[in-house]
Amino acid sequence: MAVRVDLNISLDGFATTTDQTPENPFGEDWGRLTAAYVGTRTFRERVLHDASGAGSTGVDDRYAAAYFEGVAAEIMGAGMFGLHEHPDDPDWRGWWGEEPPFRVPVYVLTHTPRDNIEFANGTVFHFLAETPDAALARATDAAAGGDVRIGGGPSTIRPFLRAGLVDRIHVAIAPILLGGGIRLWDELRGLEDGYTVTSEVAESGTIHVTFAR
Amino acid sequence: MAVRVDLNISLDGFATTTDQTPENPFGEDWGRLTAAYVGTRTFRERVLHDASGAGSTGVDDRYAAAYFEGVAAEIMGAGMFGLHEHPDDPDWRGWWGEEPPFRVPVYVLTHTPRDNIEFANGTVFHFLAETPDAALARATDAAAGGDVRIGGGPSTIRPFLRAGLVDRIHVAIAPILLGGGIRLWDELRGLEDGYTVTSEVAESGTIHVTFAR
Repeated sequence: MAVRVDLNISLDGFATTTDQTPENPFGEDWGRLTAAYVGTRTFRERVLHDASGAGSTGVDDRYAAAYFEGVAAEIMGAGMFGLHEHPDDPDWRGWWGEEPPFRVPVYVLTHTPRDNIEFANGTVFHFLAETPDAALARATDAAAGGDVRIGGGPSTIRPFLRAGLVDRIHVAIAPILLGGGIRLWDELRGLEDGYTVTSEVAESGTIHVTFAR
Repeated sequence: MAVRVDLNISLDGFATTTDQTPENPFGEDWGRLTAAYVGTRTFRERVLHDASGAGSTGVDDRYAAAYFEGVAAEIMGAGMFGLHEHPDDPDWRGWWGEEPPFRVPVYVLTHTPRDNIEFANGTVFHFLAETPDAALARATDAAAGGDVRIGGGPSTIRPFLRAGLVDRIHVAIAPILLGGGIRLWDELRGLEDGYTVTSEVAESGTIHVTFAR
């Protein structure tokens, strides 16, 4: 059982973008940050439900497939679930439609818990006002020996990294500069201690860096 | 003729370190940041004057050799030359001893110019209170068709990047987190526009990223 992080970041270290508008709620930069991942065959099958076999099949797709493999529970922040954009909507069910790609219990960290939301494909969102430690204990129980992913965003992930709770960190670095947003690596001097760090460059130009214990 | 930047940065984007002490004026982190570069055969020959042939000869050494190739003039900040640490020493001649590795005219940007310093190996330090544009015009003249490097530090390099004056940027990213210092990439959103970005990973784990026009 491993606790994992997988994240797309820019070359200047940002895991979020700043150019959202009402008309374009994700912004252009989000598309550029995630283009290589979204372009993989695995993402198209798993998230977009495109069974045509389209999509890239190289190094990026190998990481995309590994992203979904072995994860038996997930933890995410309220922002990643969409509670910041939809604070007053009791019927908000997340960004992912009726087939969220998780298919496992997902623990959403929020100061204002709400009722569980269950989907037919095995995804169940639980809402917890807990510390990272307590949330991880709960997710670890649910995972029953499988991996737990701390999904995001970066502000949710960082306390887990600082507390030494994460066994494997994979970042996919897009070779673009975003100039602003929330950084993954803030205040993490010496994080590499105790990890072996390896990197490889995908056909798309994305740099995949993995910290493994 | 090309204007070039080559810099060692950490995975969290810092080009300077924060753990300097009087006993260890460069700090431990500087050693970790530059270890792969300093370990190359080219650095050992060119900077340490070690003719034994020792040092690494792989991908890192290929970049180290390219670092010195074709540069016919250099621009650096007062801090890189050492004026901040030695403001009141009129005899300060830089960090590099009597055989500085540049062997070309070097333009040091400072608000308090001083007399030129000439070395037998062709290195001549000039001290200029100029804008980036004016300093680059001067260095370009001196280079007479050869390349001009903006050597550092990051605060000196950034205005040249922002003004679109740099043709090739090479960063060697050490897979370590420094947690503080001066960042190279601050406020450079969209820098990649107009460049082709390529990356490769050295045997040492260093990630070499090149922006070329």
